[in-house]
Amino acid sequence: MRVSSRALGDEMGITASQIRQDFSCFGEFGQQGYGYHVKELLTEIGRILGVDQNHRIIIIGAGHLGHALLQNFPFSQTGFAVDAAFDISPDIIGSYINGKPVYAMSEIENYLKENIVDVVALTIPQSVAQETANQLISLGVRGFWNFTNLELTSANPDVIFENIHFADSLLTLSYRIAHKSARD
Amino acid sequence: MRVSSRALGDEMGITASQIRQDFSCFGEFGQQGYGYHVKELLTEIGRILGVDQNHRIIIIGAGHLGHALLQNFPFSQTGFAVDAAFDISPDIIGSYINGKPVYAMSEIENYLKENIVDVVALTIPQSVAQETANQLISLGVRGFWNFTNLELTSANPDVIFENIHFADSLLTLSYRIAHKSARD
Repeated sequence: MRVSSRALGDEMGITASQIRQDFSCFGEFGQQGYGYHVKELLTEIGRILGVDQNHRIIIIGAGHLGHALLQNFPFSQTGFAVDAAFDISPDIIGSYINGKPVYAMSEIENYLKENIVDVVALTIPQSVAQETANQLISLGVRGFWNFTNLELTSANPDVIFENIHFADSLLTLSYRIAHKSARD
Repeated sequence: MRVSSRALGDEMGITASQIRQDFSCFGEFGQQGYGYHVKELLTEIGRILGVDQNHRIIIIGAGHLGHALLQNFPFSQTGFAVDAAFDISPDIIGSYINGKPVYAMSEIENYLKENIVDVVALTIPQSVAQETANQLISLGVRGFWNFTNLELTSANPDVIFENIHFADSLLTLSYRIAHKSARD
C-alpha cells in the first residue's frame, strides 16, 4: 500500500510540500510521483523515533499518577519496556502494579548499578522533584520523563528532560475558551 | 519592577525581538527602552490566557489519573475551579477526593443542567472516550481536556479538544535519546 504526501498532509492539516520537506530532513523516502510505501514509511519513522531500540524505563513514584501510567499507558507501542516502579510508601513497596514490582526508593542505587535504565518517569511530588532528579543523575540516569509540573535542570548537558506540561495544556485550553467567547 | 525583552528572551531561550513580536500580537505592552512592568505584564498575560475568568471544570473518571489530578494539580493557579468528579464505580461514588464530591456518571445530565461547566477533564479508558465525549457534547459541553491518548473528534466546530499527548511526549524523548547515542 502506498500513500501520497498530499494524502498525509490532508490528514494532518499541513501541505504536501511540508510533508516532503520534513521527511527530507531524514533522508530519501518514497519516489517522486509514486508516494510512500506505507509499511516502509512506518518502519523508517519508527527507526527515526528510536521505537526499535527497546528503551528501558522505570517509574519513580507509584502514587496515583505512577499507578495510572503503569496500568494504562501503552509503553510497548512507543518502544519502551517498563521494568519496575520505586516508592517510599511501605504500603505499596513489595507489591505489583500491572505485573511490575514496586521497590523501595532506598534500593534505587543498587538497581541502577545492576540494570540498564534509559529513562526514568518522575511521578513524585514537586517538593522532592529536583533533589530526586539530582540523586538519579549522580547515579547515571540521563533521560527524564518529567510529570512534576516543575522545570527541572541539570548542569550536565547529557541529561535530557522531557516535560509533560499539564498546566501549559490547561492554559492553552483556557485561552481557546476565552477567545471564542466573543462569538457565543 | 521592570523586565526587558532581552532578559525575558534569555530566560526562555528565544530572542528579544521574538518576545516583542509575540507580545505585539496582543496589543501594546511596555515602553520602548523601558521594558515591561512585571506586575502589569503578569495581569495582562493572565487576562489573555483567560486565567481571570474562573473557569469551572469537572473530572470525568475518578480512577488513578483523575484522582491524581484532583489531589495534586494546582487548578486555581491556572484560573480553574474544580467542582466535582464523576465515575461509574460504586466503590468511589459518594466519596470525596481532596474535598471534591464523586458523583455517579448517571447523574451527569442533571448536573450539567444545573451547573456551569466550561471544561471537562476526560480521564476515562480509551474504549469509552469517544462515546462519552459525544454524550457530553450532546449535553452542551464544549471544552475537553483530553487525557485518553485518543484523538477525539466532533462535527460541532464549537467543541474544543485540548489533548495531553503522553505518547507524543515519550516518543520525543525516545527520539532525543536515540539521536544523542552517536555521541556516547
